[in-house]
Amino acid sequence: MKEIGAAMSLIRRGAEELLIEAELVEKLGSGRPLRVKAGFDPTAPDLHFGHTVLLNKLRHFQELGHHVMFLIGDFTGMIGDPSGKNATRPPLSREQVLANAETYREQVFKILDPDRTEICFNSAWMNEMDAAGMIRLAAQQTVARMLERDDFAKRYANEQPISIHEFLYPLCQGYDSVVMKADIELGGTDQRFNLLMGREMQKHVGQTPQCVLMMPLLEGLDGVNKMSKSLGNYIGIAEPPKEIFGKTMSVSDSLMWRYFELLSFREASEIAALKAEVEAGRNPRDVKVMLAQEFVARFHGQQAAVEALADFEARFRKNEIPDDIPEVRVAVGEGMPVFKVIQEAGLTGTTSEASRMIEQGAVKLDGERVEDRARLLHAGGRVVLQVGKRKFAAVVLE
Amino acid sequence: MKEIGAAMSLIRRGAEELLIEAELVEKLGSGRPLRVKAGFDPTAPDLHFGHTVLLNKLRHFQELGHHVMFLIGDFTGMIGDPSGKNATRPPLSREQVLANAETYREQVFKILDPDRTEICFNSAWMNEMDAAGMIRLAAQQTVARMLERDDFAKRYANEQPISIHEFLYPLCQGYDSVVMKADIELGGTDQRFNLLMGREMQKHVGQTPQCVLMMPLLEGLDGVNKMSKSLGNYIGIAEPPKEIFGKTMSVSDSLMWRYFELLSFREASEIAALKAEVEAGRNPRDVKVMLAQEFVARFHGQQAAVEALADFEARFRKNEIPDDIPEVRVAVGEGMPVFKVIQEAGLTGTTSEASRMIEQGAVKLDGERVEDRARLLHAGGRVVLQVGKRKFAAVVLE
Repeated sequence: MKEIGAAMSLIRRGAEELLIEAELVEKLGSGRPLRVKAGFDPTAPDLHFGHTVLLNKLRHFQELGHHVMFLIGDFTGMIGDPSGKNATRPPLSREQVLANAETYREQVFKILDPDRTEICFNSAWMNEMDAAGMIRLAAQQTVARMLERDDFAKRYANEQPISIHEFLYPLCQGYDSVVMKADIELGGTDQRFNLLMGREMQKHVGQTPQCVLMMPLLEGLDGVNKMSKSLGNYIGIAEPPKEIFGKTMSVSDSLMWRYFELLSFREASEIAALKAEVEAGRNPRDVKVMLAQEFVARFHGQQAAVEALADFEARFRKNEIPDDIPEVRVAVGEGMPVFKVIQEAGLTGTTSEASRMIEQGAVKLDGERVEDRARLLHAGGRVVLQVGKRKFAAVVLE
Repeated sequence: MKEIGAAMSLIRRGAEELLIEAELVEKLGSGRPLRVKAGFDPTAPDLHFGHTVLLNKLRHFQELGHHVMFLIGDFTGMIGDPSGKNATRPPLSREQVLANAETYREQVFKILDPDRTEICFNSAWMNEMDAAGMIRLAAQQTVARMLERDDFAKRYANEQPISIHEFLYPLCQGYDSVVMKADIELGGTDQRFNLLMGREMQKHVGQTPQCVLMMPLLEGLDGVNKMSKSLGNYIGIAEPPKEIFGKTMSVSDSLMWRYFELLSFREASEIAALKAEVEAGRNPRDVKVMLAQEFVARFHGQQAAVEALADFEARFRKNEIPDDIPEVRVAVGEGMPVFKVIQEAGLTGTTSEASRMIEQGAVKLDGERVEDRARLLHAGGRVVLQVGKRKFAAVVLE
């Protein structure tokens, strides 16, 4: 086990907030492996890089010799939304939960060490709890305390209904920490209230309260919105090597450093050195290639990373894309035809000139010839447009 | 079964509010015996006349041929107050609950017909409910709806804590109605919110919602405060005949009519006739004697009633208490020595005169000689004080 200063430095890397630092230092000082909890949704997982911020942090704890408890919150998932207001949350069957857990397993062990990971289901203890037990849990917190939670406070103030069972779910999450005897729980900053609930409920039964480590929400490829499937600004961990590589290469130079901090397994010192080199004049694209290779290697192996790089370089050379293409931002609204994007990006003077160039086969998007002038481009992501031999633009679609 | 008009008239007698009248008429019209629910506290019962208002109403339903479900709310009683804030509500054991139920049985069957009474324990179904079931119940109501309840609204506004489990108890009470398939639930006016909860939860599962019949809280012997053991202004149903008789005789003439309405088994028409006679000049004391006899007979049998009357009349004649003793009110605060009460009531000019009369054996309280001048009299109730041969006062202790 590393010495505590180094351990704290690794734990703090990229984290938004740690409560309570002094308590964690004390726990680390005990020398025993800490019980590290993180809760995950029981619905069918199709993980993207945004989810891996938390997984990577769990991996840090494993590197430090601690015990990771990967909690699948299947108890509430099997209840669904009992108020019936949310039709998109039907109850999951036991079979679905197990199938989803299997999908998790396949994906997360590309990051986590299976030997130091315990997969838990909170149905194991929550299914054993009776109504009286639930009432006893509910007695531990007050209505006013619950209404302090941001989203509840807003909904109550706006007279939007809050079902009473919504007050019970944070209590269940806190009780999970009691049963699991968690030393520390990890979660997104949006989980702050529920994570603190665990501390309170552990105190209630006389346990040492868990520390809470909150990770930021990862920005998507656009560098603005949080990474999410519905916004289309994501990299899925199950995507093919070429996609992972290409999407990584599409992020801006500043976002690249953020991804290094939150997603790369490289040491912080190594990243600092790379940053210094770029500041001293090294082409940031070279460094971005290293990041893209790391991602492909993680999810598809070293060989795939080598091939993805070769493929990228071949296309790059073939297309003779210059190093210093200008970056422009185009607001595409609900979606904009490519001929219009070309004109907006300043690559042609008019849209009819853009259409003519497409008809002549003289337009490429990310190195591929554009055949259909009406092809819609959507917000999120960054594409390289080439018109004729010499006109290039890196277009950030907004 | 009586015809509906007569039935409704008996049901409405003394009741504060009936919801929804048209629905009850329809249910009565079906001709089937209705399922009539009333819930009772599982703590050690020592019933007084205040409790019998509800029991008498249940008896009315039995007279009309309906099925009474006497529900002992033992489920919540066995949880106690899980927030630990109320030290006077420790959890009850299964044995205590059964012992209390036995005490109920002994007392209530002096009023109810055992053949038409089903004694229910809500633990029978609530102990079977799991935490998921409790969450599903909780999903049926909103936080805002709960905060409409008077006491919750006040406590929330005054920043007094409301434990979340307090929101679950009304839901449990409502769910009892679902399981019991109640056609109508009876309760005090202070139970309005919880009684209506039963309607909502029955609707939720597609049952015809129960009607709700609210009975007033009975005034105690002082005619002002609600009858309660702690105020000392009560008649216990287990008290000896002489006590029941004497206490009944001590109530004011106007309160007597209230007791006739809410506590007597006499027909409304008969009571109206008695009232007319008193208005025409009959001594109200004669009518009060009828009420006192009825009460003694109910709880101790006809023979005891005859004896109580004879005893009362003997004492009455012996003490030669005149018919028209003046009634005075004395504020006794935390308790006042009898010599001071005598002076306050205007029976002597000074307290030292009062003390002297006591020493001489010339003071009687309810016909018994007062030996100790320092004897404390407490608020609640009405006593007859006699000083010497001719000075009387009926003193209402406040």
